[in-house]
Amino acid sequence: MSNMHQGTQVMTRQIRRGGGERDVESESSCLPKLTVSQPTGDRVLDTLARASDGQGLPTLAQRLVEMRLRMSSDLKALERSLQAVTQDRRDDSLAWASAKMLLSHPGKRVRPLCVLLATRMGGGEVDERSLEAALACELVHGATLLHDDVIDLGDERRGAPTSRVIYSNAASVLGGDHLLLDALKRVRALGEPLLLDELLEVIDQMVDGEALQLERRGSFQPNRSAYMQVVEGKTAALFKWALRAGGTLGGLSVDEVNALGEIGLDMGVAFQLIDDLLDIEGDAATLGKIPLIDLREGKLTWPLILAAEVRPDLIELVESFIESWSKDHQAEPYSRSDLRDREVISMSSHTEQTLSNIVHIIKETGALVSTRHAAEERIESARERLSLLPSGPSRRALNTVLETIIARRA
Amino acid sequence: MSNMHQGTQVMTRQIRRGGGERDVESESSCLPKLTVSQPTGDRVLDTLARASDGQGLPTLAQRLVEMRLRMSSDLKALERSLQAVTQDRRDDSLAWASAKMLLSHPGKRVRPLCVLLATRMGGGEVDERSLEAALACELVHGATLLHDDVIDLGDERRGAPTSRVIYSNAASVLGGDHLLLDALKRVRALGEPLLLDELLEVIDQMVDGEALQLERRGSFQPNRSAYMQVVEGKTAALFKWALRAGGTLGGLSVDEVNALGEIGLDMGVAFQLIDDLLDIEGDAATLGKIPLIDLREGKLTWPLILAAEVRPDLIELVESFIESWSKDHQAEPYSRSDLRDREVISMSSHTEQTLSNIVHIIKETGALVSTRHAAEERIESARERLSLLPSGPSRRALNTVLETIIARRA
Repeated sequence: MSNMHQGTQVMTRQIRRGGGERDVESESSCLPKLTVSQPTGDRVLDTLARASDGQGLPTLAQRLVEMRLRMSSDLKALERSLQAVTQDRRDDSLAWASAKMLLSHPGKRVRPLCVLLATRMGGGEVDERSLEAALACELVHGATLLHDDVIDLGDERRGAPTSRVIYSNAASVLGGDHLLLDALKRVRALGEPLLLDELLEVIDQMVDGEALQLERRGSFQPNRSAYMQVVEGKTAALFKWALRAGGTLGGLSVDEVNALGEIGLDMGVAFQLIDDLLDIEGDAATLGKIPLIDLREGKLTWPLILAAEVRPDLIELVESFIESWSKDHQAEPYSRSDLRDREVISMSSHTEQTLSNIVHIIKETGALVSTRHAAEERIESARERLSLLPSGPSRRALNTVLETIIARRA
Repeated sequence: MSNMHQGTQVMTRQIRRGGGERDVESESSCLPKLTVSQPTGDRVLDTLARASDGQGLPTLAQRLVEMRLRMSSDLKALERSLQAVTQDRRDDSLAWASAKMLLSHPGKRVRPLCVLLATRMGGGEVDERSLEAALACELVHGATLLHDDVIDLGDERRGAPTSRVIYSNAASVLGGDHLLLDALKRVRALGEPLLLDELLEVIDQMVDGEALQLERRGSFQPNRSAYMQVVEGKTAALFKWALRAGGTLGGLSVDEVNALGEIGLDMGVAFQLIDDLLDIEGDAATLGKIPLIDLREGKLTWPLILAAEVRPDLIELVESFIESWSKDHQAEPYSRSDLRDREVISMSSHTEQTLSNIVHIIKETGALVSTRHAAEERIESARERLSLLPSGPSRRALNTVLETIIARRA
């Protein structure tokens, strides 16, 4: 409970996060500045475009801007629907307020984007049903974020205090339940029993992934299968569903829908691998970033697994770093309460030394290169599968999304 | 978190609870003693029978025993299915362990019993589908109990420490999610879209009821509509679904299914009204009971609403009682952490005086009599509706269940 008050002071603009998406925004850009009138769906693609442009990838940036123009009305409709989800609900409900707050700080909306792109791939227009599936996807994602923040005692998300900090853990548990039920009702109403079955299965997998991560918190023994189970459950399963749902509603064949599902899995895993990479690479390269946030939250990352397989002494070193960091900041090990504040990046010289050793050893083993390689392989495999799908602007757009995943640097 | 350790010491056999079911068990009985080999479904009806018998209601007791004999194999099958839900799951998952623990301390299984009775009412046998619906009902109930305990910080349930005390809040949130998804998958698999839609709606109402109760915690302003919204959401909606689902699967007509639904609503509300009554009546009559547990948890009860409408000074008195009780036991107001322990019934003379005043005033206004009357009216209305249903042993059995609800004294 003491975290709650502490948390409200953590109001920094944008902080990197482990195990999920990160908003990407570069400092300088040759693209026109967007007004920050909250929240419009197409803002999301612009953010991606700016990031690519800032990273010297003007072609990718250009393609993202084109995609934004084409998807603009779909994304705006999605955003309107998202707002409407909470609008009609009992005004004084803390549970709905909690859900509303989460939805009003938009992420990149990658999952609904996947639904919409997959729908268009068969040549069909995005209709009410496809928008409902896209919406359901984002609602499920939102529900798990609300629950995860309660479970991890997270104080900040998407650059703002978490709902649980403002409205209590209880409200966030109930708000998450509401979003989940709302999503399931929408998918049920589509009259596609298979999509509903698959979504129920996906949510179960997501819960299982979160549970497994929770149980393994603080264990840095290299365990590839546990890692993959967490990532597939927490991240990849919903990407898979998003693409399958879009493809199904867009009238693609069973084989095409299956190919989309596989692309979704690869996409999700690659997304997480790059996330893991940035958790370590970012520290060395980017000034002011909080280092090894995933590890400090007790979460095993792929580069550490690879590195610890050849250098088992790393595990003890990571444990010692966490202990020493916690001591510096008078925090519980693995608590997320102090990790979000840009102010809190000071370290004792001992902590700094340990950190630098860890990064050095991980790099020395080649684990960073291998992790990037693994992500690239996943994206490559996904891109190969694209050839099984109808060609056209939507397939090109999905290709662009795949490229963006490995292109991001923050 | 400090509650966790405190909670594990609270191991008394049977403690009364607010806002939910209570196991009823009388000290002496002319019925044969049951072996307490955990958990068999038919134990539940025996417990009810003993209670009725102990209360000088031998006819009712006899009918419950007959019902047990007739339903025995159904209830045993249900219990086996409930055990199987958690058995096949990942062994080391704290989330499933949390769910398993909840399911292994059986309640009265009244909801699944309703499904089974309603199924038989059409003359059909209880088959796999009906058992699945019964199971789903109990799983949804279990899921909300797991979440509610996290929300209310409850330390004890069904005479044992809550799952969250043993396995953490996080495990209980995730365990509840698992049970909910399991239930929805089963109902989806029945291929009755309407039942699934209704269940999703019911769960949403249950979440809303819990949220409303949470928000109104500690407000004793008499508000009949808020009270009814909480009770219908948290208790009655699932009874309604249980009877409707059973009737639907048993092949009853739409009118009959609707009648069953109304019976379920009345049943749920009556159940809660009697619960409220016992929260106050029990204190005066029964030695060693913890007084006014619902009010001390900040929950408005029907007798207080009725009494406070004519005696608004009661509200201040209740607040003063809670404050004074909390001071005696060095507990937070409305916390459930100290309420479950039979040892903790000592009160300062000031607290005792206030308590006695409250009970006196409530009785004086006639609120207890009116509350019992309201419950009886609900049961009467339900029994009248029974006439719309096919006569036979199952209708008689449901009638017995209705009688039991107002007959219980603990």
